[in-house]
Amino acid sequence: MTQNNVAQPDYERYGRRGYAEAVFCLGKTVDQVRTIASMWRQRSVDSDEALGAVLFTRASTPQLDAIREELGEVFIDATASLGAWPAEPPASSGGRVVVVCAGTSDLPVAREAALTASFLGRAVTEVVDVGVAGLDRILGHLDTLRSADVIVVVAGMDAALVPVVSGLVSCPIVAVPTSVGYGAAFSGVSALLSMLNSCSPGVGVVNIDNGYGAGHLAAQISAPRSHHA
Amino acid sequence: MTQNNVAQPDYERYGRRGYAEAVFCLGKTVDQVRTIASMWRQRSVDSDEALGAVLFTRASTPQLDAIREELGEVFIDATASLGAWPAEPPASSGGRVVVVCAGTSDLPVAREAALTASFLGRAVTEVVDVGVAGLDRILGHLDTLRSADVIVVVAGMDAALVPVVSGLVSCPIVAVPTSVGYGAAFSGVSALLSMLNSCSPGVGVVNIDNGYGAGHLAAQISAPRSHHA
Amino acid sequence: MTQNNVAQPDYERYGRRGYAEAVFCLGKTVDQVRTIASMWRQRSVDSDEALGAVLFTRASTPQLDAIREELGEVFIDATASLGAWPAEPPASSGGRVVVVCAGTSDLPVAREAALTASFLGRAVTEVVDVGVAGLDRILGHLDTLRSADVIVVVAGMDAALVPVVSGLVSCPIVAVPTSVGYGAAFSGVSALLSMLNSCSPGVGVVNIDNGYGAGHLAAQISAPRSHHA
Amino acid sequence: MTQNNVAQPDYERYGRRGYAEAVFCLGKTVDQVRTIASMWRQRSVDSDEALGAVLFTRASTPQLDAIREELGEVFIDATASLGAWPAEPPASSGGRVVVVCAGTSDLPVAREAALTASFLGRAVTEVVDVGVAGLDRILGHLDTLRSADVIVVVAGMDAALVPVVSGLVSCPIVAVPTSVGYGAAFSGVSALLSMLNSCSPGVGVVNIDNGYGAGHLAAQISAPRSHHA
Amino acid sequence: MTQNNVAQPDYERYGRRGYAEAVFCLGKTVDQVRTIASMWRQRSVDSDEALGAVLFTRASTPQLDAIREELGEVFIDATASLGAWPAEPPASSGGRVVVVCAGTSDLPVAREAALTASFLGRAVTEVVDVGVAGLDRILGHLDTLRSADVIVVVAGMDAALVPVVSGLVSCPIVAVPTSVGYGAAFSGVSALLSMLNSCSPGVGVVNIDNGYGAGHLAAQISAPRSHHA
Amino acid sequence: MTQNNVAQPDYERYGRRGYAEAVFCLGKTVDQVRTIASMWRQRSVDSDEALGAVLFTRASTPQLDAIREELGEVFIDATASLGAWPAEPPASSGGRVVVVCAGTSDLPVAREAALTASFLGRAVTEVVDVGVAGLDRILGHLDTLRSADVIVVVAGMDAALVPVVSGLVSCPIVAVPTSVGYGAAFSGVSALLSMLNSCSPGVGVVNIDNGYGAGHLAAQISAPRSHHA
Amino acid sequence: MTQNNVAQPDYERYGRRGYAEAVFCLGKTVDQVRTIASMWRQRSVDSDEALGAVLFTRASTPQLDAIREELGEVFIDATASLGAWPAEPPASSGGRVVVVCAGTSDLPVAREAALTASFLGRAVTEVVDVGVAGLDRILGHLDTLRSADVIVVVAGMDAALVPVVSGLVSCPIVAVPTSVGYGAAFSGVSALLSMLNSCSPGVGVVNIDNGYGAGHLAAQISAPRSHHA
Amino acid sequence: MTQNNVAQPDYERYGRRGYAEAVFCLGKTVDQVRTIASMWRQRSVDSDEALGAVLFTRASTPQLDAIREELGEVFIDATASLGAWPAEPPASSGGRVVVVCAGTSDLPVAREAALTASFLGRAVTEVVDVGVAGLDRILGHLDTLRSADVIVVVAGMDAALVPVVSGLVSCPIVAVPTSVGYGAAFSGVSALLSMLNSCSPGVGVVNIDNGYGAGHLAAQISAPRSHHA
Repeated sequence: MTQNNVAQPDYERYGRRGYAEAVFCLGKTVDQVRTIASMWRQRSVDSDEALGAVLFTRASTPQLDAIREELGEVFIDATASLGAWPAEPPASSGGRVVVVCAGTSDLPVAREAALTASFLGRAVTEVVDVGVAGLDRILGHLDTLRSADVIVVVAGMDAALVPVVSGLVSCPIVAVPTSVGYGAAFSGVSALLSMLNSCSPGVGVVNIDNGYGAGHLAAQISAPRSHHA
Repeated sequence: MTQNNVAQPDYERYGRRGYAEAVFCLGKTVDQVRTIASMWRQRSVDSDEALGAVLFTRASTPQLDAIREELGEVFIDATASLGAWPAEPPASSGGRVVVVCAGTSDLPVAREAALTASFLGRAVTEVVDVGVAGLDRILGHLDTLRSADVIVVVAGMDAALVPVVSGLVSCPIVAVPTSVGYGAAFSGVSALLSMLNSCSPGVGVVNIDNGYGAGHLAAQISAPRSHHA
Repeated sequence: MTQNNVAQPDYERYGRRGYAEAVFCLGKTVDQVRTIASMWRQRSVDSDEALGAVLFTRASTPQLDAIREELGEVFIDATASLGAWPAEPPASSGGRVVVVCAGTSDLPVAREAALTASFLGRAVTEVVDVGVAGLDRILGHLDTLRSADVIVVVAGMDAALVPVVSGLVSCPIVAVPTSVGYGAAFSGVSALLSMLNSCSPGVGVVNIDNGYGAGHLAAQISAPRSHHA
Repeated sequence: MTQNNVAQPDYERYGRRGYAEAVFCLGKTVDQVRTIASMWRQRSVDSDEALGAVLFTRASTPQLDAIREELGEVFIDATASLGAWPAEPPASSGGRVVVVCAGTSDLPVAREAALTASFLGRAVTEVVDVGVAGLDRILGHLDTLRSADVIVVVAGMDAALVPVVSGLVSCPIVAVPTSVGYGAAFSGVSALLSMLNSCSPGVGVVNIDNGYGAGHLAAQISAPRSHHA
Repeated sequence: MTQNNVAQPDYERYGRRGYAEAVFCLGKTVDQVRTIASMWRQRSVDSDEALGAVLFTRASTPQLDAIREELGEVFIDATASLGAWPAEPPASSGGRVVVVCAGTSDLPVAREAALTASFLGRAVTEVVDVGVAGLDRILGHLDTLRSADVIVVVAGMDAALVPVVSGLVSCPIVAVPTSVGYGAAFSGVSALLSMLNSCSPGVGVVNIDNGYGAGHLAAQISAPRSHHA
Repeated sequence: MTQNNVAQPDYERYGRRGYAEAVFCLGKTVDQVRTIASMWRQRSVDSDEALGAVLFTRASTPQLDAIREELGEVFIDATASLGAWPAEPPASSGGRVVVVCAGTSDLPVAREAALTASFLGRAVTEVVDVGVAGLDRILGHLDTLRSADVIVVVAGMDAALVPVVSGLVSCPIVAVPTSVGYGAAFSGVSALLSMLNSCSPGVGVVNIDNGYGAGHLAAQISAPRSHHA
Repeated sequence: MTQNNVAQPDYERYGRRGYAEAVFCLGKTVDQVRTIASMWRQRSVDSDEALGAVLFTRASTPQLDAIREELGEVFIDATASLGAWPAEPPASSGGRVVVVCAGTSDLPVAREAALTASFLGRAVTEVVDVGVAGLDRILGHLDTLRSADVIVVVAGMDAALVPVVSGLVSCPIVAVPTSVGYGAAFSGVSALLSMLNSCSPGVGVVNIDNGYGAGHLAAQISAPRSHHA
Repeated sequence: MTQNNVAQPDYERYGRRGYAEAVFCLGKTVDQVRTIASMWRQRSVDSDEALGAVLFTRASTPQLDAIREELGEVFIDATASLGAWPAEPPASSGGRVVVVCAGTSDLPVAREAALTASFLGRAVTEVVDVGVAGLDRILGHLDTLRSADVIVVVAGMDAALVPVVSGLVSCPIVAVPTSVGYGAAFSGVSALLSMLNSCSPGVGVVNIDNGYGAGHLAAQISAPRSHHA
């Protein structure tokens, strides 16, 4: 039986798209993560092309330890289970990203979105625990919302924050359902469906708990126009 | 093979519960509806107990015609596909019911709820097309909402109107998901799940498109206290 | 990246709705729960408005310990995984809440409902293990059922207790499906659907295992009329 | 391309099992139903083995017309969309089958069950419209229920009739969910799940709206013991 | 708050139905199981009515230990996670139950069915690992199958054993889907649907993994005729 | 019973968000659509604020006729079931929108997206029938794809076009699942899930068949930066 | 707005894969189908490359008429709703395909599979109505089954024919679930899941009712080895 | 109660089909696996028929230890959780199997497929981490893909690799969805549906994570023609 390596990183992605491939660590062994980290380090030695910031998402503590051992100085955020290499985000350019989350329990996903957008080069503002059950909380942040070029809304359960925010602003919304809740929340399905059916148009939805994807999309939406035109 | 009649109406329900049994017409033949109508008419002749208002819900035009032929003067509302006998609602007593619906397409269900509560003896106010995409619309009715003893909220799709209204008032909410929408609205499932997961507590949910059940429950919630205490 | 606090409690909710915001502990870290508890304590120092009873729901033992450390005297019920502060429920007012559960395994959810209604100011009676397989059990409690202003029915699996109870009384029913059972009980979906399709009208359904929401809704339904009219 | 006939009836089934194969007409063309009817007629000419009663289920009016044209004297029931050949059921033997249905709308399925059991050789009693919302209705038939060797319970929506009946008798229950209802009844899924989770044991469930299967199973359960022992 | 006991056993069920209530231990604490066991023991002391065999199903090892401590001599089967009191099944009467399972992994469910039928008074034969992928295995047991008054078929995944067995015999089949398998087996849903759609009529289905319910139903089907006629 | 009008258009939306409210015609009667059209016409008479382009989506032929009767000169596209008033799109500004669809059957949804973006003020290019089964088709449009500021990808079934296109460009993707297909396409669910799980990040998903929402979101993403910054 | 044509046929597919692209007609207008037919005709005039047999699947009668008008002599099969051009299948080569279906209602799908394999160059044998409820029917065709290089099994409902056939032969099975049945057949989902969980390995499953895909796959599996090696 | 053994291995399967029965270890106790291993060893002693390679799939470490203790020299692969006896695969014959997987996390399933095909007698090549987000990765292996007689494609999430690969080659594809991913990946359902709806025909799908079934089917498809013709 003929076998090849465990991974083929898409090194050219930064050159092609402007954003590097991330390493999704969930379901990989610590050794596999370490091997992939070392492949990136080797590539940075072997090639003089720019590689961009490599993110390690959904990384467990042992995986993050292995990444640090392999790559040296890395950025690590325990709330978001995220590592980044190099450890500093690039200088921000393009528009402004605002990340809003409905409750404290949505924070890990919101943080993953915020950090991803930051490491992809955007200025980011985080607004936490502003669910619509107490409407004054979100209305109190109206200036921040209207200053955004794109807003990431992170919410579980009824996800009612999405149409409320969308109806108040002109910029696009990236909506991230979370698996917060129980019973008929169905691990995020309730929020996902609610978001897909937002009565206010202008909402693009990503996978349940996919803070990374939301931050990536927000960074693209708010990219400097010269970047993609 | 031994067979009995096609129906056994629960004539005693008004005496037992204070509300008569309704005739759910969907899935019954015109002849079956006619037969059941005639059984109620006969009962009113044979017995001197109070029977209450008999509602015919989800009735098609031919079914409504048969009801009118059989019972004479009946109330009919085409939007709600509803018939009622006797044709006049009782004098209103108890608290106030407000029925709010998110969009014009939710109107048949909202009307069924409003008429049911009215024929069960409550004063009812209807507020239409106040979805949260334009938040000022619902906030403009705040006085009406706060005057209610119970609010029926009828909404499809994201059903975000439910937690927004619930968070603004102290009275209980009866939430009715509607099958309005398409695709991932899944014929009302999206709204149903959103309502079951309302981030604002104080919400009791009924079946998709079940205006009758909502109006019934609202009438019970706002019943005169002497009625059930 | 600009970040704010981990939570923004809706302190004004008691003033606005008559019921304080509860802290849903599932999915929060012990530190986050402790921080939120301390924010409530600080608010009670800083402000002389009434805050109402703050409930901590779905709280683990370490979370309950942290709450007690932060707030001093608190009420704790291990069966319901519930904490309350202040430790004493208010004097009861309004109507009577009866909480009925179908089986012993439904008890944690029933207890959460009963305690919530109690801390929101109602008199509560609990009736346990009266499933319809032995119909005499529920029929033996008919007087208690008919004395209620609202009945919370807690049941899993076929949830047949709901239409049976509803058909016997005139007051509204709050139905709570539980995740008790296995296989095609689908973690409470079977009971949820059965309740939404109750052949007896007058049933408002809350989320699977949502004893808190049921107790809250029951307290609103049975609130003193002057409270909301 | 080599093709054979459109059907291969299992003529030997009556000899092997004691019950003939039925012709499920839904999804077959009128010509195919006619062809299959003629194959059975031909077989009765060609062979002197007993064939049993051949049922044509879910047959449309044109299909029933074709069957009558092909086979001459046949039994036809419009409510149940059923044809039978020969037109007379056999003399009844074995135990007693009672078919109970919750509402008038369940009648087509109940009738299919009753007729199937009858044509398979059992004495059958039908009880209609005895849903648990008015509990006295089913309790009024307790003697009939307790005289049965097997009870077929036909119900949609919450299907609460199943555990209530099962808990009152010692004989087995065959439960048939119906697609009656709307919204979260999900075309019979709600009733199906409720029945599979009956809190009273002794219930065997068949497919949604499968009156034929229920009648067949009931006939086997109540077959004369010498038949299968 | 008024509370009553944790359980109200249906002691009269044996007198009413001929089969005692079982104690479903899953989701109960060890203390609750112990309490219920002691209630049964006390009843046997206080009353001279016959109680029948009390089964404790889905019992964990600590629960089984508590039962033994409370009741003394009990029957325990680790494969089926079942306890029974008194420890001896009654003398067998009525017809013959055959329990067939498709694979070794289905054995715990099959054993629960077999033991239940045995403790409810039937003679039982077990046939294991006869899936249709090697058709000779099931065909080799044809005499056993045809000697049965009722056959319990336990199978997961495609559940193809059900129509194959049903098509070979005249007696009724009780079909039990199991959660064996992975992926699109969906924890037993695949087998459940396959069984509900058996192309061979005469199949009554119980809940996924519900060996107890299957054994109970089989015992009722094969009960002595004098028992229920 | 107190009733108000059938609709409350959100006239201020153009002023608030920069895009007018659309009239979703599905589920509305012809009379209701006509009434709403006349309300818009009246508003344009009564007020001198800018209202923006009003779109009538999912409009049937009778509804489109009513709109034309009420509003005079309107734009109508039969493929997309869309009406627009005023009849001319505004001069295009901002970035470039490219709408790509996988197959001919996806064309109605793609056209709705393209027209929506056009009437909201963007330059739009349509690329049709470039599914990945013949990869050269999409690769042949690489220059067009890379000239876009945002790409709307419309696809049903496996929706594999989404990650392939996303991986080739740097701009954001708006993905629209369509209900094209049959069987396990589940009316668009297959495509929806595939899109939500795109292995290439940078994809925002809208509801199944929601061309309007996709066009709206694309117009916002490619809006002139001065518009929202 | 820039638009291109309604279709871009993958003319090179026959050259690249050895099988031409088929035209899936469901969801296309008659005019679109006519246009696509004419594009193929034009291509055959413009180019001297071999194009292979073009199939038109799921074609309605008006669509088939348009195809015939456009292309002249075409093969049409009403049972399978299939057209083919040129009208004659190629001479058969490679191995033998056997198409087996469980019931008469599965015939349209089976015929589509058989014709597809035939027009892609294989010798095909059809075996109809051999469901396992009468096991002798399928066992009577054992020689035909064992002569096959690949067997297409078409079945709905329990789909038990798949593991039974698979267990009897050494060649691969292509399994096609059909939407035959009702209720918990869930339009083919029951059969699909059963097939995916076949207890006999060696089964590749295609979409519900996808006779075309099954025939195509069977033709590839049984292709002359020189073709792809 | 009459019981027989825990297992009846289908020893004759190798003789009948050319491939031995595998032992699926998930859900079996270590003792049951040991017993089955010993039954195979005993059979090899008692009989001189060829038995083929016996695979132990989804085996835990303790199960693999028990197998080694019982059978002596066995092949074990930790990544695939697979054991094989005898320890050497047979000499390869027939065509070439290529196993392609989309990401590193799919490797356990891909390895199970590759090893199964190898132990069933085929030459196998493995290609890893070639998802379509970086299209060059899969296009770089085009020669390997086109040398295959059958390709197994292993992918989770959007599974877009399947139609891309299928569209590039003429040989059949065996598609294996994996449970890699989270949220709306729904443990492999997203990939499963995507594969069943592949826009490129020629794809046979097996159960989620079923590397064994895929390898078995691939081995049959690429078997020496003399084997089955």
